[in-house]
Amino acid sequence: MLTENFTKADIVARYLPEKLIATDQAEAFAPSNIALCKYWGKRQSELNLPVNSSLSISLAHLGTRTQIRPSQTGEDQVVLNGQLLPVESSFACKVISFVDLFRRGRSYPLIVDTRNNIPTAAGLASSASGFAALTQAINQYFQLQLPDAVLSAFARMGSGSASRSIYSGFVEWRMGLQEDGMDSHAYPLDIIWPDLRVGLVKVSTAVKAVDSRSGMKRTVETASLYQSWPAQAAQDLEKIHQALSDGNFSELGAVAEHNAMSMHATMIASWPPLLYWQPDSVVAMQKIWALREAGVEVYFTMDAGPNLKLLFQEKNQALLETEFPGLEVVAPFEASESLNSSTTTVKEPS
Amino acid sequence: MLTENFTKADIVARYLPEKLIATDQAEAFAPSNIALCKYWGKRQSELNLPVNSSLSISLAHLGTRTQIRPSQTGEDQVVLNGQLLPVESSFACKVISFVDLFRRGRSYPLIVDTRNNIPTAAGLASSASGFAALTQAINQYFQLQLPDAVLSAFARMGSGSASRSIYSGFVEWRMGLQEDGMDSHAYPLDIIWPDLRVGLVKVSTAVKAVDSRSGMKRTVETASLYQSWPAQAAQDLEKIHQALSDGNFSELGAVAEHNAMSMHATMIASWPPLLYWQPDSVVAMQKIWALREAGVEVYFTMDAGPNLKLLFQEKNQALLETEFPGLEVVAPFEASESLNSSTTTVKEPS
Repeated sequence: MLTENFTKADIVARYLPEKLIATDQAEAFAPSNIALCKYWGKRQSELNLPVNSSLSISLAHLGTRTQIRPSQTGEDQVVLNGQLLPVESSFACKVISFVDLFRRGRSYPLIVDTRNNIPTAAGLASSASGFAALTQAINQYFQLQLPDAVLSAFARMGSGSASRSIYSGFVEWRMGLQEDGMDSHAYPLDIIWPDLRVGLVKVSTAVKAVDSRSGMKRTVETASLYQSWPAQAAQDLEKIHQALSDGNFSELGAVAEHNAMSMHATMIASWPPLLYWQPDSVVAMQKIWALREAGVEVYFTMDAGPNLKLLFQEKNQALLETEFPGLEVVAPFEASESLNSSTTTVKEPS
Repeated sequence: MLTENFTKADIVARYLPEKLIATDQAEAFAPSNIALCKYWGKRQSELNLPVNSSLSISLAHLGTRTQIRPSQTGEDQVVLNGQLLPVESSFACKVISFVDLFRRGRSYPLIVDTRNNIPTAAGLASSASGFAALTQAINQYFQLQLPDAVLSAFARMGSGSASRSIYSGFVEWRMGLQEDGMDSHAYPLDIIWPDLRVGLVKVSTAVKAVDSRSGMKRTVETASLYQSWPAQAAQDLEKIHQALSDGNFSELGAVAEHNAMSMHATMIASWPPLLYWQPDSVVAMQKIWALREAGVEVYFTMDAGPNLKLLFQEKNQALLETEFPGLEVVAPFEASESLNSSTTTVKEPS
């Protein structure tokens, strides 16, 4: 555990001009992301510095769009999916205290208007895309022109996995070593995999009983088995890099599923036990294993919630849409022409 | 890992007289047992030597009754629950090769007649009571007069947890250190707890897809998190001893549930994932957690199967029988007057 010498405000202040200049309006979109190697456990909680590096795939068009504009009433207003929230609501508080890191006590009353096209708090990581979009909107609104790596580190201070939602495609969040956490940010991998599909199986969209932050804390404090997690995560990360460079889908899927199940195992080994699964989560897992037994290459991952995210290739899309009615399929590289031109396209061995 | 210098036959031979003298018939009963601190993982597989010590409660009248008598046909016959089994069936093979350890190639054709009053292979540990009853019946049939500790070590060579089913009440199986495993046997604890109840929730009585032996092997070989298991099991064992000596039911239940969930966590963290739970197992867990939230002191444990075993006190029996229709309740100390006279009766703090 590092000493907690730095506050978020100290760190953000270093990157701000003497006087903020606001524009009329700013808007940013950030995708949700699904970790293939999970972030689970903090080494420092104020700055959300992780115990392990992680790696994700961003969900293209699924995510959060956030608009910032001046508030005419002189009071901050937080709007979520078209609804004005009470300022004392947990969501509004988080948004306002994040914006406060940039305003430093000066008066810039704002309307923060946020729209998710994914179910909020159902294990589909809306806080990740939310803080990433908010950070980018703030960057634009105050014309900060900060580089993506800094935005990623700032977004991480809002919600750890938000560091990855700054980018599209495959993204690695390096855990970093510095006490101020400014080396703990994500970067995009120059790999595209047009064939890859992520399928969202919605078991439940109810708000979960134990939020990820508390769940992580309980796991680190009470699960003996958690002691073996950091080494496994480090190993899984290497395996995923290898699978990506080999274009080996089976290996990618297997490592991602094993990693997710191991993370859930650390939760289950906590006290009191932390089980994010619903009975229907088990039904879906059993179905996936049966399909795999039958030769269909499909894997899954899960976050701190009951929903499954399937990993498969385009060729199996129709079959899986039949097997899982209501499956929402994302092609993460649909708009891949907009990615960095030096990107390598994965060609799977045929 | 120890070197595998010893075979089962070598070890058994040391305890046998030059010439076996058979009686007309022998019969023994051994109770099933439910581990409160689980046996999970072998340090040596030929002799079933465990990675960790474990502690269980025997299930009084639930278990296996085994009768041995000479076979008039000259061929071994294995009868399970009244049905003559084909000699090439897995059950008959295991029984016959265990008996062979004692016959050492000499001709004693036998009928081994086994009756379980618990569902076979449904996570209710019929192999534990089965090998314990068989070992005791062999001891009587050949008039070996071996001490219980030796019978426990022999039963362990049939099935690890059978070492504990030699005794009633609370039983500890010490892992031991010797290469021949003769210090790896169970012994009974001199504690009785008349108030304690074990409730069997039958989620499924189907034969499980992956037997415990294979499950254990897969876990040890593929689950990184398993590395933290032996230390946790050692700690849980100490906590259970403390809870028993304090008569602290809440602590006993909590440690047992945490231990079981941690064992399942190591399975879930295996590859491919090993999930013995059914959707209805999760339904039952959620119900137990809700009852506990509502102030009802009930805990559970689970073995390598989908069924739950509730731990509670007599005062909650009626309520739990209503909540879990079909609950089979065992009072492990019902016949406690037959236990060792030096036994300490637990008096819970009032």
